Amino acid sequence: MRAVDLIRIKRDGGQLERAAIEWFVAGVTGGDIPDYQTSALLMAIVLRGMTPEETWLLTDAMVRSGIRVEYPGLASVPVDKHSTGGVGDKTSIVLAPLAAACGAVVPMMSGRGLGHTGGTLDKLESIPGFRTGLSLDELRAAVDRIGCALIGQTSEIAPADRKLYALRDVTGTVESIPLISASIMSKKIAEGIGGLVLDVKSGDGAFMKTHEDSRRLAESLVSIGEAAGVRTEALLTSMDAPLGREVGNANEIIECVETLKGQGPEDIETLSVELAARMLVVSGVEPDPAAATTRVRRALTSGAGLEKLKEIVANQGGDPRAIDDTSRMPHAPDTDVITAPRAGVVAALKAEAIGKAAVVLGAGRDRLDAQIDSAVGLTISAPVGTDVSSGDEVIVIRHRGGRGLAEARRLLTAAMVIGDGRPSRRPLILERIEQRKG
Amino acid sequence: MRAVDLIRIKRDGGQLERAAIEWFVAGVTGGDIPDYQTSALLMAIVLRGMTPEETWLLTDAMVRSGIRVEYPGLASVPVDKHSTGGVGDKTSIVLAPLAAACGAVVPMMSGRGLGHTGGTLDKLESIPGFRTGLSLDELRAAVDRIGCALIGQTSEIAPADRKLYALRDVTGTVESIPLISASIMSKKIAEGIGGLVLDVKSGDGAFMKTHEDSRRLAESLVSIGEAAGVRTEALLTSMDAPLGREVGNANEIIECVETLKGQGPEDIETLSVELAARMLVVSGVEPDPAAATTRVRRALTSGAGLEKLKEIVANQGGDPRAIDDTSRMPHAPDTDVITAPRAGVVAALKAEAIGKAAVVLGAGRDRLDAQIDSAVGLTISAPVGTDVSSGDEVIVIRHRGGRGLAEARRLLTAAMVIGDGRPSRRPLILERIEQRKG
Repeated sequence: MRAVDLIRIKRDGGQLERAAIEWFVAGVTGGDIPDYQTSALLMAIVLRGMTPEETWLLTDAMVRSGIRVEYPGLASVPVDKHSTGGVGDKTSIVLAPLAAACGAVVPMMSGRGLGHTGGTLDKLESIPGFRTGLSLDELRAAVDRIGCALIGQTSEIAPADRKLYALRDVTGTVESIPLISASIMSKKIAEGIGGLVLDVKSGDGAFMKTHEDSRRLAESLVSIGEAAGVRTEALLTSMDAPLGREVGNANEIIECVETLKGQGPEDIETLSVELAARMLVVSGVEPDPAAATTRVRRALTSGAGLEKLKEIVANQGGDPRAIDDTSRMPHAPDTDVITAPRAGVVAALKAEAIGKAAVVLGAGRDRLDAQIDSAVGLTISAPVGTDVSSGDEVIVIRHRGGRGLAEARRLLTAAMVIGDGRPSRRPLILERIEQRKG
Repeated sequence: MRAVDLIRIKRDGGQLERAAIEWFVAGVTGGDIPDYQTSALLMAIVLRGMTPEETWLLTDAMVRSGIRVEYPGLASVPVDKHSTGGVGDKTSIVLAPLAAACGAVVPMMSGRGLGHTGGTLDKLESIPGFRTGLSLDELRAAVDRIGCALIGQTSEIAPADRKLYALRDVTGTVESIPLISASIMSKKIAEGIGGLVLDVKSGDGAFMKTHEDSRRLAESLVSIGEAAGVRTEALLTSMDAPLGREVGNANEIIECVETLKGQGPEDIETLSVELAARMLVVSGVEPDPAAATTRVRRALTSGAGLEKLKEIVANQGGDPRAIDDTSRMPHAPDTDVITAPRAGVVAALKAEAIGKAAVVLGAGRDRLDAQIDSAVGLTISAPVGTDVSSGDEVIVIRHRGGRGLAEARRLLTAAMVIGDGRPSRRPLILERIEQRKG
């Protein structure tokens, strides 16, 4: 088999067969296919697409480029949640403890922030001492003992994806539903889960800006999961404004703690409860959806979710006192405010620009190897729909010695729209996508 | 400027601006842009295309990646011919001496064979002692003294094209009219010519199989030439069967000598005379087309063309006695024949398969670094339209010790079609393409 022949087939709009896809993924993983051939094939895939069958074969080959984790002897199938990335999206840190408190087994593997979207690992690492780099043995032990761990992908998981993603990032070949689907699902399938709930974001702050594209991505992801024997469903959720009021790292953890105390923003609570309930459903812990929601709500109001978070933190080397007393979390030394330029109603807070403002303050990264500052970030004082007078505080900027402040102010001022009438807002949860029955 | 941004623009169907194209070509030439980004951009160009403006800017940047040769003090502008590649296409070796004998200045830079098409340099090097690797100083001296040299591209000519071509060959990005146009024309423009006649092949043995694709390529090439100030025109010519009767190297040189003696096949003579006459026209040596044809025909019948070929051979270290006495040229030690399987008329001799048969015998190459055997090749005994009886010789195979013989027999048997009626043949010269007047 020759790489150039595969490239030509895809360039001309043909389909790649199983043997060709397996040969290609093995060649990429082993370093036998040069990057210049890989990137040419990736671009041909971006522009010519892949059938669902090809996308599944690619995913499967990527899974088998590494190990597929096994969890022997569990009472229920392991379950995870994955979000396609948003601004202020901290639901993992709320829903994983809630689902685990309800008896689900949650070996959650998350990513870091890149571009305008934040990452769960970065947020968790703002908790003093918290370690996300657990080995697979440590992960299994955590799952056995407390039902949940919140960690990063280990090197054994889908190594082909790491190589392909690094190349896609610098060759303009990220934007492809088949390639995005294979990247996400190869990692999730390799984790060894039996159930998966996807939070596919749609809107200004999401990777997919339109409902239609988000739905196509969700359908692709769900179909791969089901082909791999993972019970998978997706919620399409809106990402027009940031989720909750906090955007950053330590401040987002504090908001998660508030939510687990029943004192968080309504959108974070609603979405976290819904996603956790669906995790109970797809894992079979509680097959009845209404009962699942009731159980998750009880774990919230009883404080069982908050207790579970403290167990997780303690188990991964973090200081649980920072959860009890959030003044022990990092705080930015300096603040500034964005105010309303006139009286009216906050009509929009555009998520992408707000995410970018957080990055320039140091809360996120433009490059995979950049360091982040856990303490800096933003607090939305006047969410969309709030009546404001001229000069009222809309966003608090939490910065360190003015780093990135001027650029952040520029971005935030442009992100804020003050209107006159009540803004029409679409629902938070737009749609649920399950496998079409054959 | 970042390569990934250029890639994204082209991926999304946008146009690249002058500064972006110049930056890209300089980066490729200098090795500053990694191959994996270059190949992604090339694939995006293959699938999204380029406007005529972009194609011209790419060509111009590739010209300026090296030097543009100058020939001070000539009586007429230097003129060249370029063929897009065919099987048995040996016209350069006939027409260059004819045009030079008529007073044209012909600093001809040719290429080597690759795939099923032969290369002028390989054919010339079958003449004992003939050297195609002249320096630019040697080229200028030859042009001053005898009006013609037949050489390979020097390293100063369009180095960006060498890098891009090597990458295109292994990344499935050869098949693109803008990229083919920029590759051909950057080299021709950098040669320092003021006139150019293109022989754009169309048909089974050509790169462009259809008349329509050939015309699009011809129009693209002509438009670039004129933009560069090179008076350019193209003939679309048919490449369904091989040109002439000989396919190989030494045997093609012998056929050229026969043609310059007035004893060659009609198609080679007709096309060589027409192309040489157009070279006189575009270089201004003889602006009147009919008069140009008359002058070229006289150079053929007078033997002036043959004398000029001997001058060129002697000037480049070759043995002119091999022209006077072609038994001094290499000859293959062994022969075999392909015969007609039944009585009828030779209806087709498919050029591509015949070219491939010559390659497997050793007369051509599959890889740029392969060695060729000057002596081996094929002779067509019964051209298209010949009446044959069962068992009549149609093709003579000139091989060395059976190398490639079985595969060549298989290819040639499949390439030969014996029919019953007289085959309809399209004309040799299909169309002439000149710049559309603005």
